[in-house]
Amino acid sequence: MERIYAGKTKDVFKDDNGEIVLYFKDDMTGKDGVFDPGENQVGLTVEGSGRAGLEMTSHFFKTLEANNIPTHYLSSDLDKKEMRVKEIENFGDGLEVICRYVAVGSYYRRYGKYIENGTVLNSPIVEFTLKDDDRQDPVASKETLDILGLLTNDEYDKIEQLTIQISNIIKEELLKKDLELYDIKLEFGKDKETGDILLIDEISGGNMRVYKGEDNIHPLDIGKYLFN
Amino acid sequence: MERIYAGKTKDVFKDDNGEIVLYFKDDMTGKDGVFDPGENQVGLTVEGSGRAGLEMTSHFFKTLEANNIPTHYLSSDLDKKEMRVKEIENFGDGLEVICRYVAVGSYYRRYGKYIENGTVLNSPIVEFTLKDDDRQDPVASKETLDILGLLTNDEYDKIEQLTIQISNIIKEELLKKDLELYDIKLEFGKDKETGDILLIDEISGGNMRVYKGEDNIHPLDIGKYLFN
Repeated sequence: MERIYAGKTKDVFKDDNGEIVLYFKDDMTGKDGVFDPGENQVGLTVEGSGRAGLEMTSHFFKTLEANNIPTHYLSSDLDKKEMRVKEIENFGDGLEVICRYVAVGSYYRRYGKYIENGTVLNSPIVEFTLKDDDRQDPVASKETLDILGLLTNDEYDKIEQLTIQISNIIKEELLKKDLELYDIKLEFGKDKETGDILLIDEISGGNMRVYKGEDNIHPLDIGKYLFN
Repeated sequence: MERIYAGKTKDVFKDDNGEIVLYFKDDMTGKDGVFDPGENQVGLTVEGSGRAGLEMTSHFFKTLEANNIPTHYLSSDLDKKEMRVKEIENFGDGLEVICRYVAVGSYYRRYGKYIENGTVLNSPIVEFTLKDDDRQDPVASKETLDILGLLTNDEYDKIEQLTIQISNIIKEELLKKDLELYDIKLEFGKDKETGDILLIDEISGGNMRVYKGEDNIHPLDIGKYLFN
């Protein structure tokens, strides 16, 4: 297998048959040893976190496929910490799409003058951000994404609609275990064969903020609730 | 006269008849003595800049009124550096609305990964920002401005449309003198009597980036071209 991309929490390989394999590492984003899904750097290494991330990702991708959401998921091997996926093309160097149900994190940091931390939003807010560590992943509007040549207006609308659909499904899944989804970060790409827009990357504890009552659930603990 | 607000470049007074008077100071926004319309602090003091700002503001407000744009302008007295205006209510602690024709300044700083500095935009981009020095005047979307209780969706649409209309008029005015408008910052408020949305504040060199060919025209020099 040839490594074609080294990410913060995952490496991407192309195997001898030309299939794409994601390898889930034991690294998590954060700062000074504390996990933070909004951070742009590896902040800690936790044994077992790769496997846990893959287990949750597989679970959610299967759930989403059952709900007719198009994803890049093909199969997974928990022991090898590997997930086989369809080959995709990124939008530019990648976009992250955030769906917010509660005002926390960077949303609160930006708008704290007018909203209290933890305020439940009347309707979910979707924000598109550019993957750009040097510029702190700036938020970009529909018009700007078009100007930058990253998304047509139709693609934007489609991804926005998918984001709300997907996030609502995951929110419902978590709610069955009395867990509350505050926000979640998704990624999309284009199927290299068909050109279809697919949900890509992973959906694990590292991509979301989850609470149980007043308690912020550590990303590695979400699985304990979800699979019991 | 009683001072009811001390701003960076203007003070606001209420006179004995209850009328609102803006006093244009000789202070300009910038950093380390260099003018920058995007800066949030007074960076330099230049004798005559208050009068020059008022002269240009009066000129543009009169031009806009002639084009049926509703503004807060009533009259001005250049020697006193005073402008009389209608009393308004702010949206929250104030919004700034930016209309961009060319990718420069903070737009380039955010999106420089995908766009070159100085790229002419196919169509003008309008961005709403919150006046909030502590949070570097964050950009806010239509949905967020609604959630924060600052603008209804109807008010957003109205202000966005007015911003393009106003900016285009100013762009045309400048073009007559071979000056090119790169971007401009406007403010809006609600008429305290009628509730109408009005263009408020000032429209001077300090609110816009203007070029003549390759040369960035200093805000205090724009008037020399405009009034000759």
